[in-house]
Amino acid sequence: MEKILIANRGEIALRVMRSAREMGIKTVAVFSEADRNALHVRYADEAICIGPAPSAQSYLSGEKIIEACLKTGAEGIHPGYGFLSENAAFARQVKAAGLILIGPSPEAMEIMGNKLSAKAAALTYNIPMVPGTEEAVTDIDVAQNRAIEIGFPILIKAAAGGGGKGMRIVEKASDFIEQMDLAVSEATSAFGDGSVFIERYVSSPRHIEIQILGDNYGNIVHLFERDCSVQRRHQKVIEEAPSSILTEELRQKMGESAVNAARACNYTGAGTVEFILDENLDFFFLEMNTRLQVEHPVTEMITGIDLVKEQIRIACGEPLSFTQDDLKIKGHAIEVRVYAEDPANNFLPDIGNLQTYITPKGPGIRVDDGFEQGMDIPIYYDPMIAKLVSYGKDRTEAIERMIRAIDEYQITGIQTTLAFGKFVMQHEAFVSGNFDTHFVGKYFLPEHLTKDDEEEAMIAALIGSSFMESKNNVAKGNEVNQVHSQWKKNRKEY
Amino acid sequence: MEKILIANRGEIALRVMRSAREMGIKTVAVFSEADRNALHVRYADEAICIGPAPSAQSYLSGEKIIEACLKTGAEGIHPGYGFLSENAAFARQVKAAGLILIGPSPEAMEIMGNKLSAKAAALTYNIPMVPGTEEAVTDIDVAQNRAIEIGFPILIKAAAGGGGKGMRIVEKASDFIEQMDLAVSEATSAFGDGSVFIERYVSSPRHIEIQILGDNYGNIVHLFERDCSVQRRHQKVIEEAPSSILTEELRQKMGESAVNAARACNYTGAGTVEFILDENLDFFFLEMNTRLQVEHPVTEMITGIDLVKEQIRIACGEPLSFTQDDLKIKGHAIEVRVYAEDPANNFLPDIGNLQTYITPKGPGIRVDDGFEQGMDIPIYYDPMIAKLVSYGKDRTEAIERMIRAIDEYQITGIQTTLAFGKFVMQHEAFVSGNFDTHFVGKYFLPEHLTKDDEEEAMIAALIGSSFMESKNNVAKGNEVNQVHSQWKKNRKEY
Repeated sequence: MEKILIANRGEIALRVMRSAREMGIKTVAVFSEADRNALHVRYADEAICIGPAPSAQSYLSGEKIIEACLKTGAEGIHPGYGFLSENAAFARQVKAAGLILIGPSPEAMEIMGNKLSAKAAALTYNIPMVPGTEEAVTDIDVAQNRAIEIGFPILIKAAAGGGGKGMRIVEKASDFIEQMDLAVSEATSAFGDGSVFIERYVSSPRHIEIQILGDNYGNIVHLFERDCSVQRRHQKVIEEAPSSILTEELRQKMGESAVNAARACNYTGAGTVEFILDENLDFFFLEMNTRLQVEHPVTEMITGIDLVKEQIRIACGEPLSFTQDDLKIKGHAIEVRVYAEDPANNFLPDIGNLQTYITPKGPGIRVDDGFEQGMDIPIYYDPMIAKLVSYGKDRTEAIERMIRAIDEYQITGIQTTLAFGKFVMQHEAFVSGNFDTHFVGKYFLPEHLTKDDEEEAMIAALIGSSFMESKNNVAKGNEVNQVHSQWKKNRKEY
Repeated sequence: MEKILIANRGEIALRVMRSAREMGIKTVAVFSEADRNALHVRYADEAICIGPAPSAQSYLSGEKIIEACLKTGAEGIHPGYGFLSENAAFARQVKAAGLILIGPSPEAMEIMGNKLSAKAAALTYNIPMVPGTEEAVTDIDVAQNRAIEIGFPILIKAAAGGGGKGMRIVEKASDFIEQMDLAVSEATSAFGDGSVFIERYVSSPRHIEIQILGDNYGNIVHLFERDCSVQRRHQKVIEEAPSSILTEELRQKMGESAVNAARACNYTGAGTVEFILDENLDFFFLEMNTRLQVEHPVTEMITGIDLVKEQIRIACGEPLSFTQDDLKIKGHAIEVRVYAEDPANNFLPDIGNLQTYITPKGPGIRVDDGFEQGMDIPIYYDPMIAKLVSYGKDRTEAIERMIRAIDEYQITGIQTTLAFGKFVMQHEAFVSGNFDTHFVGKYFLPEHLTKDDEEEAMIAALIGSSFMESKNNVAKGNEVNQVHSQWKKNRKEY
């Protein structure tokens, strides 16, 4: 391909363009009226406005995007993540227009886009599922027998329920009948349907996902795991690769399962198979994401593979240029998502103007972002400012570099989740690798951040009205200047 | 160590502080009056002014630096490169003051700091030297016999000469007597001493250097080579690792020689053994640099080892935590030195204010610098603004990323060598790996850059008066906006 259109915005649009540019491929940006001055628009070789700010009228309009492609002569479309990236209907429209979607087939998207068909596909390769009833049950005896087979703790959930409604955790067998009775009557009164599903309750789950790449010739490899267990309200906030708890044997088993899941839907391109891992290191299939993940950089750091370039090459019909044996993990990478949210105020979005915006540099630091100093963060889209990625020879060094980079990051004008990221990096549970998806709920309190800020403010007050003034005094007087955490303080002054 | 002083400025001071901070070590910056607002001063935990702008009165004043150390309670001194980094007398003063110099012993510095003692040390391990006369000769017959033994081409240089004066290259044996006659009489009239040295002339040399690390327990490893053959007036301007021409066997042989050179002077810490490599892939010892090199990041990228941290650990008396067998090359890294010089105007220094200064980001890019937008580049010091480092899975990807990063780098207010870097990255000789230290002299003409600029100016004129205006028109009219190389153009407008 000589020219591609990137049907996305922000950091991921820039990310894709960078790889395309390195491959000598021209890029076309699309943008909404709110993104007129966005970096991805400036970075592209061509740019085309596709409508008003609301996504439904621009970034989600498949029609306008295909039109832009035809107008500019772009041969392929990279959808990034979110928006239309997992939309099978769009994938079909792209194909029908004679264009190439840089992603899997619409059929693969459909299979993996539906919980039941995804499960069915995964089962053809005996990929482990969370043990449970295949069908809804109402009979208490049948339910109890299944529960004993499955093993406790057990999760009972209403077949007609959703969003946690009608869900009960049963810790031990002796409680089962009482809890089952309650669950059925609750479900009956809430949904008019007393039938329930029963499954193993994973009380301390890790979210482990496997990156895969498949070409059009049946070659599928995995690029090891990402551990995305640090989540807030089921949203990933910090990811790392490799996981701190996988053994080499388990890594290989999960990798094979992920490759099989891809094989089960004739997957091509880059995809991710998500698993839940329990306390006994048993893993169970969750779902497959048929697109590039937000957190793909950590995999790039430890494997040296540029996933976007591989996506483009595969879409061009090239076979994979490496085998599973060629892939090796080197070092450790961590990603902290930097959101325009106030962690001290329940992570409320805090959009506005990036009055100061200076990103960290130096060894082992990669910043994927879509902003420059002075820019506004628009209210219409995801409030992610950047993905801050650290790389080190081992997990300890990656953590140390992340903390150093967070301290270097200078943002004023809006509140961000940087301090939250530092909290996680310094928390004993994270440092030891002994944590699960409940980490944030279990350990994080806004007070942890507030205290720090107060201390800083106090120090700032103690050392005088202005940092620069203090420095000048030092310079004039040839005196020692003792400032604690001055770079962080500095962040506020510049 | 809990606190160290960095006896340097600019990017290398920041570079060292980053590693120290990651290790939990407090840092003390020293600064001249010209560097009052410099980044390294802001980054440090403490900062102390050590005198007026001229280096001799500040960064070269060992006394003031040791005084600053004692005042602040810093236990060790990292000298960076340049300034006092290879000064054995300073190293002795540091030791006498009860402080630790993060570097080799004064004895090692002295041995390697003198051409004759360095050569003598290297010879104890049979490290190859450029073949030549050990002592000066005046007798033509003796000289001719030696010349035939050495092999042509031959370099004749006046024993009392220097700076290229009285040097002659003799291509073939039949020319020797005539040229020798001329050289002797020229030397006699110029220096009053007709004696000359004769040595092999390496007509197409590569500059290959080997990074080594040695601890206090006799463990010495090498971290492979850096190819620094792209030089301008004998100054390195672009470096890479690994070299495009070394075989695995040669790499091992040169590595062993470098380790032996280090052993010959009981070397501890990080050091670099420089070799010249001829067309037959024979290598010869040049010298050993007893400090961290400017170009050390390319080695860090391909090995995953943080050289500054290793320096500090060694200075703390820790043994090396890895062996030679643990070290592997992964990928390829290139460094382009970004100078405040105008390559279109004979590389004249072009200091001033960094009106725009936005560094490239994304996969495989590392920027080591010491400036932020709005800062002035002081006239007193080396005009290097930054070291732009690219990393890729192979040399081709590293080159592609470097070009992409150069295009992204936005600097206005001063001329830089970025365009020169791009010229090299795109030159067939560099791309093919078939070049030597004469690359710049042989291939570079300022016209190569000027043309590009004119073309851009023309395009800019064609597409309208302002980029942003053009973008706005696009946004309003929902029209396609065709801009060639707009990011580069953009560099000039923002």
